[in-house]
This record gives sequence, C-alpha cells and structure tokens, in this order.
Amino acid sequence: MLSGRQSFIFQSNPVILGHSAVGGPFEARGALSSEFDRLFDDIWMGQDSFEKAEKKLLEEACNVAITKSNVKKEDINFFISGDLMNQIITSSFAARTLSIPYLGVFGACSSSMESLATASILVDTESAKYVLAGTSSHNAAVEKQFRYPTEYGSQKPPTAQWTVTGAGAVVLGKSGIGPKVTSATIGKVVDMGVSDPFNMGEAMAQAAVDTIETHFKELNRDPSYYDIVVTGDLGKIGHKIAEEILEQDGFHFKEGCFKDCGMLIYNDNQPVFAGGSGCACSAVVTYGHFLKEIERGNINKILVVATGALMSPMSYQQKESIPSIAHAVSIEK
Amino acid sequence: MLSGRQSFIFQSNPVILGHSAVGGPFEARGALSSEFDRLFDDIWMGQDSFEKAEKKLLEEACNVAITKSNVKKEDINFFISGDLMNQIITSSFAARTLSIPYLGVFGACSSSMESLATASILVDTESAKYVLAGTSSHNAAVEKQFRYPTEYGSQKPPTAQWTVTGAGAVVLGKSGIGPKVTSATIGKVVDMGVSDPFNMGEAMAQAAVDTIETHFKELNRDPSYYDIVVTGDLGKIGHKIAEEILEQDGFHFKEGCFKDCGMLIYNDNQPVFAGGSGCACSAVVTYGHFLKEIERGNINKILVVATGALMSPMSYQQKESIPSIAHAVSIEK
Repeated sequence: MLSGRQSFIFQSNPVILGHSAVGGPFEARGALSSEFDRLFDDIWMGQDSFEKAEKKLLEEACNVAITKSNVKKEDINFFISGDLMNQIITSSFAARTLSIPYLGVFGACSSSMESLATASILVDTESAKYVLAGTSSHNAAVEKQFRYPTEYGSQKPPTAQWTVTGAGAVVLGKSGIGPKVTSATIGKVVDMGVSDPFNMGEAMAQAAVDTIETHFKELNRDPSYYDIVVTGDLGKIGHKIAEEILEQDGFHFKEGCFKDCGMLIYNDNQPVFAGGSGCACSAVVTYGHFLKEIERGNINKILVVATGALMSPMSYQQKESIPSIAHAVSIEK
Repeated sequence: MLSGRQSFIFQSNPVILGHSAVGGPFEARGALSSEFDRLFDDIWMGQDSFEKAEKKLLEEACNVAITKSNVKKEDINFFISGDLMNQIITSSFAARTLSIPYLGVFGACSSSMESLATASILVDTESAKYVLAGTSSHNAAVEKQFRYPTEYGSQKPPTAQWTVTGAGAVVLGKSGIGPKVTSATIGKVVDMGVSDPFNMGEAMAQAAVDTIETHFKELNRDPSYYDIVVTGDLGKIGHKIAEEILEQDGFHFKEGCFKDCGMLIYNDNQPVFAGGSGCACSAVVTYGHFLKEIERGNINKILVVATGALMSPMSYQQKESIPSIAHAVSIEK
C-alpha cells in the first residue's frame, strides 16, 4: 500500500523464502567471509572472460536462493535483476539460463534494493506468487568497463572504492518462514554537482539522506524504529557526510545503528580505499550477513538503503556531474 | 490480477491520461510524421552531443505527456523509463530533470512496453496514483555506441535496421478519459542462436512469437480478439519469420491485422534497410499513431508486442548469440 508519494507499507509482508550470497577470492579474505554461501577461489570462476565470470556468479546466487527456498523454478513468476555491465548483459544472460519471465532493472548499485522493492510490490499485491530478485558485480569486469583494465595498474585516490566481486539473490513469496519485507521507499535522483568518479561516496551521500528522510517522514518513523539502518556503498567518506547531514536535519542514530555495507565487507588490511562498492556490495552484505543476523535473533528490524551513481563513462567525458539515487527496503524478523 | 504464470488482466483498466511522441528530422519525412506531437528539424536538438540530444527528446516527450494529462508533476508517484545508452543515462538524467521518484528499467527496445506494463501494474494495484512511463532512442548516439560513428560511412547489409530518433511517454492514472490498458504479458528470454547484430529482426522473431502465444494461451484469447497485433521492431525480415511461425502454430491473423512498428514509421523512399528499430520505434508508433487511431475510433483493441535484443557490443565480441525478449501490453478504447 502506497504511503505518501513514494513509499510502501506492505500489507502481507512478503517472506524471503531463500537468500544467497556468493563471492570471489578477495571477498573470501574479507570480514564477512563466513557469511557467504559460496566463495570462488579464482576470479575467473572457470570462465574465459570476466563478463562470463560475473554471469556465473549471478547464476550461482540464483540457483542457491531457489534451492534454499524450496520453490520450484517453474513456479517462479518473475526474475528481476540488474547490474553494472553495459546493457545489463549479466542479468539478461542469466535470465536466458534461468528461463524465468524477466524484468531487467537498472539503478546502478541501488539495483539490489530496486529489484527487491519491485519484487515485494508484486508479491504483496498478488501480482506474483514467487519472485526471484538478484544482482551482481565483478571487480575486474567493472574496472575494465568504467576505468582501466586492472593490468594497467593505474593508481587511485583514497576516495576511490573497491567493486565487490559477488552476487546475491532472494526468492520472495506470500507466506512461509523467513525474514519479512515490510516497507520500501523508491528514491528520487539527487545531484550535488560532484563529478569525480573516484569519489562516488560523496556523490551518493545526499541521495541516501534524501531517501532515508523521506522514508521516515512518509512512514512516520524515526531512526529508533530500526536496529540498524545500513547504506549500500557510500564508503567511509560518503557515509560520514550522510551521517552529518542526517544529524543536522534532526535524525540522530545511536552508536552502531547507522552502518554502510561497503565499510563492513572487507578487513582493515585489505587495500580497498574508502570501502567496497558495486551492485553486489549491498546484496551480499544484506542477503549474506544481515538476513542471517535476523535469523540468528541478533537483530529484528533493518532498513537497507542501497545507493547508486547513475553515470556512465560517456557522461563523465561530457563533463556531467553524477546523478545519484537510493532505494530503501525494510526487513523484519 | 495475475493470469497464468506471466500475464496480467488489469481489474481497474489504468487510463492513459496523456501520451506523446517526439521525433527528429528523419522521422519528419516518415509515413507517420503527422502523428508526432513535436518534430525537431535538427538531429542535435540544440545540444552539443547526441547523448544530450536524446535526453532532450525524452524530457520533451515527458513534458508533453504530463501537460496533456492535466496531472501535476508533483502528483506523479513514479517515473519508469529505460533506453539503449550505456547505464541508461538518457532516462536517469531525464529523471534528474523531472525530479519524480524513479525506477530505471532495461529491456533494450522492449523497454517501451516493460515500462508501460510495470506502470500499469502499479496503478492497477493502487501502488501508485499516477505513473509516467517513457523511453527514447537516438540514431546517431546508438550508431556511435553499438556500431561505428555515422561519419565513418560504414556499409550495412539489407537485414540491418534504422534506429528511430525519438521518444514517447504516457501518464497513467486510475480513472479519467483516455485509452485503457487492459492486460500485459511479461516475456521470457529466448535465444535462437542468431549472433549477427545486423540481423536483430531474425534474432527477436522467436521471442515475439513466444510472448504472443503465451499471451493468447494465458488469457484464453486468439488473434481475432484484437483489431491489430503489432510487434515493436522486427522489421521486414523478422516480422515475416514471426508471422510464419505463428501461422504454423495455428495462430492465423487476418490480412492487415499483424503489423510491425518498424515497418510503419518510415516511407518506402527512406533508406532504412529492413525497417525502423530502437526503443523509440514502438513507443512513438504506439503513443503517437495507434493511441490516436483508438481516439479517432478507427480501432478498438490493440496488442503491442515490443521486442528487445539483450546483447551488448562486448557480448558480440565474445561470440555470444543474441538473447531476445518481448513484452506485450493490450490497449483498448
């Protein structure tokens, strides 16, 4: 049910029947390695290109989520997915393999929560019985497409972030046992005039703030409603900016209640600059770590605010600033 | 309401309150030039890049549709849009200008009906009061990104198609006066092994057939239900293949009842090879021509089957075939 202009309160609370997180060798050395369902020990995932490797990650994540959900693939109405590759080929080629009716989405790194929010609307309104939602990213495929091939060894500033190699997926249904999706807020595009693609966190911070504040206002909630509000991939710099703006605007978070997936996924000894990023960042941290934290009884209510930088190398070359967006989804025990 | 696995019958029949089609100078010389709301006489649309020109087209289409709908921009819950540019920058930058909560979608040239189908689901289930759905393409921007800059003058085979320069948009609402969206079928990815990017029509034909046959089966209809079933951009070659397969499978269309937007938009004396293509092809022909035909009382029921080739230049270079998809939406008087 619509609440305000751009938020939803779900009446039936769609259930996450199965969820998965898969990652690569770098993620296996990260802080959340034990939370993954599968970790590949090779960034090629046995494929002959990084693009095909990313497809393998997404297919694996989807298969694990479907298996854990105990829902037959043929009973799933829709596969909703998006990724960072040009023409979202990872999602589309995985949709070919899965053979489930397919809705491609794009919100850059916010695609994780765009797909989950859309899937939740479909299930909540009985527009679908079961929906599979997923997303993925691959460090080397993204570096090659958006920046330079990794083999060039080009240097980066400390504001840069490290694209997560991984994929996450969930199967949603109307009833059953599992964490429940309870509300969502679809974001507006916000552009603060930041044009440095090595400082995505700052570019996206205001979009995260806009969606979080809208969510609280339209649902008449405040930060105390949630055990944790977690942004997708703002990183150290963007997350600090977002926290400061929220504080100024009167939204105060208790110590440890406002986090960022990009600051949680790796260890301090990994050279990830300001933190993790990429579509898979919020997906694997949410579907791998936080859903398990809910199942373990350690947290009850979480708001995941996935952030996306809606630029392209072409828009950067044409001296455009970086339009950003954030979509928020709340998940409860 | 879900009907079968992947089709919807809309209970409230969302109304198209405003619709628009804008085009470029080549479209102004086409067979449907009188059906456009605005035709630019310059392919640059006064901008300094083709990418910005495409953004201008989409913004113009959205503004015209909003104005015609008499809905205030602030009352529109969501803007749903997708396009062919990498990272769908046309849609995302237009979303920045419009400042309406935004869901980016991608289905290549099927994005027109993906966005209309999704918008219809949201309005029908009262998940939104008003939704703006749009899409766009620009011939020179697409040639530059997917093939060669037009200045190279590279030759093409007769199976090639001509990307439409244009944009189309609609504003959907629950009640009011206008053509009604009555049902939709979301497509599955189909891949017939065609890998020639100069023969998209053949690659997409089977996807169109799959969605059309699924639509008829899940809604218990046959070709006689519609005055016209129109595919998006199969062109002469793909459309003939689709018609033959449908005929073999027992779906017979009366003379003139199975058409293709790509074969309607241009004149015979325009050098468009097998016909028009691009996201804007089905959008401008549907939102410009067919909706007006419904309003003029010339047709009552139409099924628009927008087709999309879900490849990228990278997937082609890696010798992948072209996965294709088609989404169908029915519109009635």
